[in-house]
Amino acid sequence: MKVIPGGHVVTLEPLTVGVLGGTGPQGRGLGLRLGLAGHRIVLGSRSAERATAAAAEVSALRPEEALDVTGAGNESAADADIVLVTVPYEGHRELLLGLADVLAGRVVVDCVNPTSYAHRGPPVPVPDGSATEEAAKVLPGSRVVGAFHSVSAKRLLGTNASVSTDVLVCGDDADAKTLVCGLAGQVPGMRGIDAGPLYQARLLEDLTTVLYAINRRYKTHAGFKITGV
Amino acid sequence: MKVIPGGHVVTLEPLTVGVLGGTGPQGRGLGLRLGLAGHRIVLGSRSAERATAAAAEVSALRPEEALDVTGAGNESAADADIVLVTVPYEGHRELLLGLADVLAGRVVVDCVNPTSYAHRGPPVPVPDGSATEEAAKVLPGSRVVGAFHSVSAKRLLGTNASVSTDVLVCGDDADAKTLVCGLAGQVPGMRGIDAGPLYQARLLEDLTTVLYAINRRYKTHAGFKITGV
Repeated sequence: MKVIPGGHVVTLEPLTVGVLGGTGPQGRGLGLRLGLAGHRIVLGSRSAERATAAAAEVSALRPEEALDVTGAGNESAADADIVLVTVPYEGHRELLLGLADVLAGRVVVDCVNPTSYAHRGPPVPVPDGSATEEAAKVLPGSRVVGAFHSVSAKRLLGTNASVSTDVLVCGDDADAKTLVCGLAGQVPGMRGIDAGPLYQARLLEDLTTVLYAINRRYKTHAGFKITGV
Repeated sequence: MKVIPGGHVVTLEPLTVGVLGGTGPQGRGLGLRLGLAGHRIVLGSRSAERATAAAAEVSALRPEEALDVTGAGNESAADADIVLVTVPYEGHRELLLGLADVLAGRVVVDCVNPTSYAHRGPPVPVPDGSATEEAAKVLPGSRVVGAFHSVSAKRLLGTNASVSTDVLVCGDDADAKTLVCGLAGQVPGMRGIDAGPLYQARLLEDLTTVLYAINRRYKTHAGFKITGV
C-alpha cells in the first residue's frame, strides 16, 4: 500500500480478502466488487460447500474477468489480510468469539447492521452500542473498523459499472481506516470517507435504517454521497 | 400548494415562515434561503431587538433581492404558516411548552441537534429519543416534522448559488412532510426526501454528528446527497 500525505491510498497491492458469512447478498456483492478491483477473495461460511457454490455464482456474474473468488469455511476465510464480517447480527458475537485467535492482529471490517430491513420501528438497541463495538470487545487483539454498512447489495451485484455510493469508515486504528478507505476507493463509484472513531459505528449502522426507510418510500436501492469532501 | 401524484410539490404560494431562535447561524441561514425562494420570513428571538438586527443582517447579505425578512419576538414568529425551530437544544422544551397554544394546528419543523459540534464522544441520549419527538410530545396539537438538521450554516449563509445537500424529512403527518419536502426543494441545490416516520428523527439528528466528525477530519462543511432517488 502506498499512502500519500493526506491519507490517500494511491496503490494497493493485491490482498487476500476474507468474507465471513460471505454467502449472503452483502458478502457476495462486496466479494464481487473487491474481486473486480484485483484482490483475492475467499467467501466464508459455516458450510464450505455453500461457500464454494456462492463463489462460483459470483465468478459467473463476470465470466470475462477471471475473478479470483473461492469459497471456504469461515475459519479459513479468516486467515486473510483483511477480513470482512457480513453475517446476520444474530450470529455475530458467537462467530467472532470462536475466531478470536485466528483474527488476532488482523484488520477486521465489521459491516453488520443489527436492524434488519424487515424490522419496522426505531432501530433495536445493541448491548455494546453497535455491532462494530461488539466486535472490538470480542476481538481485543484485532484492528477493528466499521464500514460498508449501507452499500446496497443490489447495486453491488448488479451489472452497473459504478456503485455510486460513499462508504463511511469508523475506527480507532488510523492505519486500518486508511487501508479500508483505500480499498473502498478502488471500487468504481465508491469512495471511503473517514467518519471518526469507533463509537460512530452506531450512527453508521443506524444510517442503514434511514436508507431502508427511503428504499421503502421510493421503491429504490438508495445510497448516499457526502458533499464538500 | 399544488401537489402532483407521487407527492411532488410543483408550486407553493408564498408562505410566512417563522423561525424560533432565528438569530443563530442555522436560523439565519434557513431564513436567507427560504426568503430567496420568495417566502416571508420572520426571525424570532427572546429579544425582538436582536431578532430585528439579525433580520437586517440577513437582508444585507443579498441587498439586490429585496428579501422580506423581519425580526420579532418568538411568540410573534410562531404565528406563521410554517414554524422552524432552530434553538439550542438546552432551551428547546421550555420554549415550545410556552408556545404550545400559538403553535396548535401549525406545521412545526424541528431542526434541533441535541449534540453540539463542540461535543466529543457518542451523541448524548435525549429522554424522548430525539428533539423532534420531544417537540411532538410537548406540542400534541401541532403537526410536527423533523428536517434541516444537517444543513451546513456556512453553506446556507455563503454566496454559493447552490446549497448542494439533501434534506431528510421525517414525521407522521404525510401532508406536512410533503409541504416541507416541497419547501426544501425550492432552494437551489437542496432536495427534500421523505425519510420515514417521526421516530427516524433520532437518526437524522445523529447524522449531524457524523457530518461533524467528517468536518473535523476533512476541515470542511460537509453535506450529503441520497443516490438512487
